[in-house]
Amino acid sequence: MPTINPERLLADLTALRRFGAHGHGVVRLAFSPVDMEARRWLVGRMTEAGLDARIDGVGSVFGRSRKPGPALLIGSHTDTQPTGGWLDGAMGVIYGLEIARAFAETGDTRELAIDVASWMDEEGTFAGYLGSRSFVGEPLDEAFAHARNREGVALTDALQTAGVAGKPRVSLEPGRHQAYLEPHIEQGGRLEAEGKKIGVVTTIVGIREMRVTFVGQRNHAGTTPMAIRKDAGAALIAFAHGLDGEFRAMARPETVWTVGRIDLDPGSLSIVPGRADLLLQFRDADADLLVRMEARLAELVQAADAKGPARVSVAPADAPVEPTAMDAGLQAHIAAAAEAEAPGRWIRMPSGAGHDAQVIAKHLPSGMLLVPSIGGVSHDFTEDTTADDIVLGCRVAAAAAASILRSLR
Amino acid sequence: MPTINPERLLADLTALRRFGAHGHGVVRLAFSPVDMEARRWLVGRMTEAGLDARIDGVGSVFGRSRKPGPALLIGSHTDTQPTGGWLDGAMGVIYGLEIARAFAETGDTRELAIDVASWMDEEGTFAGYLGSRSFVGEPLDEAFAHARNREGVALTDALQTAGVAGKPRVSLEPGRHQAYLEPHIEQGGRLEAEGKKIGVVTTIVGIREMRVTFVGQRNHAGTTPMAIRKDAGAALIAFAHGLDGEFRAMARPETVWTVGRIDLDPGSLSIVPGRADLLLQFRDADADLLVRMEARLAELVQAADAKGPARVSVAPADAPVEPTAMDAGLQAHIAAAAEAEAPGRWIRMPSGAGHDAQVIAKHLPSGMLLVPSIGGVSHDFTEDTTADDIVLGCRVAAAAAASILRSLR
Repeated sequence: MPTINPERLLADLTALRRFGAHGHGVVRLAFSPVDMEARRWLVGRMTEAGLDARIDGVGSVFGRSRKPGPALLIGSHTDTQPTGGWLDGAMGVIYGLEIARAFAETGDTRELAIDVASWMDEEGTFAGYLGSRSFVGEPLDEAFAHARNREGVALTDALQTAGVAGKPRVSLEPGRHQAYLEPHIEQGGRLEAEGKKIGVVTTIVGIREMRVTFVGQRNHAGTTPMAIRKDAGAALIAFAHGLDGEFRAMARPETVWTVGRIDLDPGSLSIVPGRADLLLQFRDADADLLVRMEARLAELVQAADAKGPARVSVAPADAPVEPTAMDAGLQAHIAAAAEAEAPGRWIRMPSGAGHDAQVIAKHLPSGMLLVPSIGGVSHDFTEDTTADDIVLGCRVAAAAAASILRSLR
Repeated sequence: MPTINPERLLADLTALRRFGAHGHGVVRLAFSPVDMEARRWLVGRMTEAGLDARIDGVGSVFGRSRKPGPALLIGSHTDTQPTGGWLDGAMGVIYGLEIARAFAETGDTRELAIDVASWMDEEGTFAGYLGSRSFVGEPLDEAFAHARNREGVALTDALQTAGVAGKPRVSLEPGRHQAYLEPHIEQGGRLEAEGKKIGVVTTIVGIREMRVTFVGQRNHAGTTPMAIRKDAGAALIAFAHGLDGEFRAMARPETVWTVGRIDLDPGSLSIVPGRADLLLQFRDADADLLVRMEARLAELVQAADAKGPARVSVAPADAPVEPTAMDAGLQAHIAAAAEAEAPGRWIRMPSGAGHDAQVIAKHLPSGMLLVPSIGGVSHDFTEDTTADDIVLGCRVAAAAAASILRSLR
């Protein structure tokens, strides 16, 4: 059995954390100078671990084992949100590095191939999942033509500045790569609430993002009697309140929905809003339920439009994301490893957050394991996980990796 | 009886409209170059009408009759909203000019004193009601120290640029000024809806502006179960929906309330809002009802805060404005003139909009008459009133002015 080295694991996580450190958290936006520094550091650590490591043509770091396949690919991402935590993404990448080292140090795993990846821009600073999409061969013409960050910098210029434009891009090797494993922090509070240590991901949830638009009549807020108003904002409030009750009635315990943004136009105290926009997101692991929620939303919009006085319409705010099932065989390997390392303290659960695994799962059997997030916090400087939980998660991942690779021989 | 000249009245309104013309509407922000041009034009027209006219130290145009008092002051404003209509304010000023001319042309009114004013910045580009506040002697230290327009230009710099800084400011002459009359467009749709031509204003409504703030916990919209969320946005929606019902139950037919702005923080589709702000305005002519609405709002805030999961608080977003009654005697003069010129086609009504008259009424008996707004539209380029209604309104104002001045002798 491979034996991971807890001190080395935590030391590497701490070293990586210094790139972009911001109080307890990290700011390491994709393609930023500090993000590229972190990638060069990672290439160095992978090389020391005996991997053939490089930064590819979209900025992903790839450490290829010198052993022949079948290979298990372990990865996640080292870029962060604008106010990022130190473990989100980074932990899975350093797990991969540590597991590759542990495998090389142990007789019975020395010949097994672990490739390790840090995918570029999982967080969507320019184009979400850029690295994993490039790896599996998804077309990126749209991203290369149009993707920009919030400051308006084009992705193609970021590639140039980062010094990776024109470099070869790593891609999935069908004969070699047999499975993908992504360890990650939970980013929610379920494991903590239930006193569990490991989540074996069954499905990465699907997502719908919709814009509901209300068009009324802009008017003077002092001189326009209530009876003749066409107040788009009042229509939005009534609609949003009704929608919440409808979704609550049809939801499963895991279903989530969020009104993340409301804009009243023109947004003045003295003016009856003539237009109002509501941005809504809902997620579930059940593709059919997402379809039913979308249909119910459309019915409610139609009813509100027919009732008046504002016109109401709905349109997608982004492309739908379908739920992605994790490979059943890999789930069994992870579950067995979890039961061995933390008996009775693991559960099967969906991932409410999106991950590179949902991109790669379309091309390669994929699995994920989650470790607890303290207070369920993520995408925030205060995000954290205890050292014990980090180490335990890596032990489970290493045991699962050995079990997976042995089953492939 | 003074006889107004419809062609001259409409020609002057058309001439004034050219300053800042923007399609059907006008953009003539207080202190802008085109606003100052319009003021110089107005000084010229007042001088031709025999008034001693000048621009004062805050930019108000004042045309003083050479006749001894008692004088009736007629006025309104020539500055506009960022997307202003051609008659809002301008009509009342040109009514004053035309009435002064008509009085001078008629034997039995030739000796009566009509002073005419265009008050600076009624619309609050820098500081609302600046001209009328200066005229009645309200302290303006705060405005001079801090008032800025949306571009950040200080009021004191605007006074310099406009060339009025240091000029003497006109002020109320207690022995001379006996009453103030402000004719204005309705800015609402009630006269049109009821087929009336003249509104005799009973009260200018009072205003409350409140900010209701919801503080929850910002979190990941995919991984945070509904049951443990502290969603500030969801709390805002539920509160706003309940508030609307509560206000509806206690409102009079004329009461108005408006949620003009909602901000969810951080305003992202993927993040449960951690903070939400709602900006609420309500208006009524009944001071007691405003107090009761404010108290009910505070109770609802307290109940929502106690219920959770978000903390809820309320604070004024601006100083309260109390309802201002128009002088009963002046109302009687205007009503009698309206009945003579438009029998049965006038009503008494509150003004839902604020006007310089509410500032001046604290120091001088004040009255207002309103003419219909087509479609109830104002603060918009499409604001309009028919030529017939404009002329009729001026006839009523002239007759009321003669009646008022005769009663004062």
